[in-house]
Amino acid sequence: MREPVERLCRSIGYQFNNLGLAETALTHRSAGSTNNERLEFLGDAILGFVIADYLYANYPAADEGQLSRLRAGLVKGDSLAQIARNLELGKFLNLGTGELRSGGHSRGSILADAVEALIAAVYLDGGYLEARRVILQLFEEKLSTLSKKSQQKDPKTRLQELLQSQKKPLPSYTIISVTGEQHEQCFTVSCRVDELDLRTEGTGSSRRKAEQDAASKFLRKIDNV
Amino acid sequence: MREPVERLCRSIGYQFNNLGLAETALTHRSAGSTNNERLEFLGDAILGFVIADYLYANYPAADEGQLSRLRAGLVKGDSLAQIARNLELGKFLNLGTGELRSGGHSRGSILADAVEALIAAVYLDGGYLEARRVILQLFEEKLSTLSKKSQQKDPKTRLQELLQSQKKPLPSYTIISVTGEQHEQCFTVSCRVDELDLRTEGTGSSRRKAEQDAASKFLRKIDNV
Repeated sequence: MREPVERLCRSIGYQFNNLGLAETALTHRSAGSTNNERLEFLGDAILGFVIADYLYANYPAADEGQLSRLRAGLVKGDSLAQIARNLELGKFLNLGTGELRSGGHSRGSILADAVEALIAAVYLDGGYLEARRVILQLFEEKLSTLSKKSQQKDPKTRLQELLQSQKKPLPSYTIISVTGEQHEQCFTVSCRVDELDLRTEGTGSSRRKAEQDAASKFLRKIDNV
Repeated sequence: MREPVERLCRSIGYQFNNLGLAETALTHRSAGSTNNERLEFLGDAILGFVIADYLYANYPAADEGQLSRLRAGLVKGDSLAQIARNLELGKFLNLGTGELRSGGHSRGSILADAVEALIAAVYLDGGYLEARRVILQLFEEKLSTLSKKSQQKDPKTRLQELLQSQKKPLPSYTIISVTGEQHEQCFTVSCRVDELDLRTEGTGSSRRKAEQDAASKFLRKIDNV
């Protein structure tokens, strides 16, 4: 038996004016021609925008490549399925008999699609700001984990602090080569601590990034010693 | 010499409170470290959402696959570059010397990215509704062309009308095979007019779609006669 949708509404903190929208969002295509596929298309787009907007505002130092990677990690199917499981969303799904028998309630892709469709249903029912609020609430834990990770120190700082704590000399960074056209340059930088007889090379689109890459490899080398 | 950005603002129908945002949106990465790459990331997401929302509302009969294809066609680089050329956006770009010399002003990818960045600049300056208004205005012509195309009659109707106008017998459609699992079936249907000694086969995820596909191929065959 499906659980009543009202309970799910309480979990996501949104009361639908038109509960039929929520029902459609929870209806897999196996259950009929009025299903959540169109809503999923819309929900995916809203979600992509709200998360992009959040990351843009909260990660002012991240370049567009980092922003894209952060977003991809947040909105990928696995993340959405996890959010669905936290909501016990499987209990509210409307599935056809085939999917019911083959365990569709717990299938990641079905759960992820339903989360996107539910987001679209909130948008159509309550507007953009309500959809935004629900999305940020659903992603609260993931966004907070991300924020903690991003506050971790960068590899160069960590390497420096590690060597200082061991009373070792600090590493020296040297540019080995710079290749490529003006705005698509690739820097190769070495990171050396002669006393330890250790040396790594890092690459990146800027000197700073190449140094961080070299420091990161240096840290891994020390860890393996 | 670059043209003053105020003229571009008049073309897109939006007056910036913070003209610096518009300047950043028009600055290619070749011109410096404060450039439009982060804005492009954000603009792409807003654009994807606004167009998805428009298509969802205006094409209630389109399934999610059709909606995705329609959107992809609208927001692809070529379309954005065309919109940029209509705005003469190249004249307002801020490029590095290398890009200036190699004709960056008219390069499609640079123009497309600047349109997305400009959309993000409007969003950050004036909010979601202003960005939405500007996007729908920039895409007005493309959306109207799309609407006319979608009002064209479907292949089965066109084939029937064509044959009637030629006093020929009407085609008969027969299901040849149905394969695949319950909700991922593939229909193969034949379309025949014996008197013309012509026969085509179409496939699709429903009987209706397979028939339309077969009719479409039939029309092409007649055209080639």
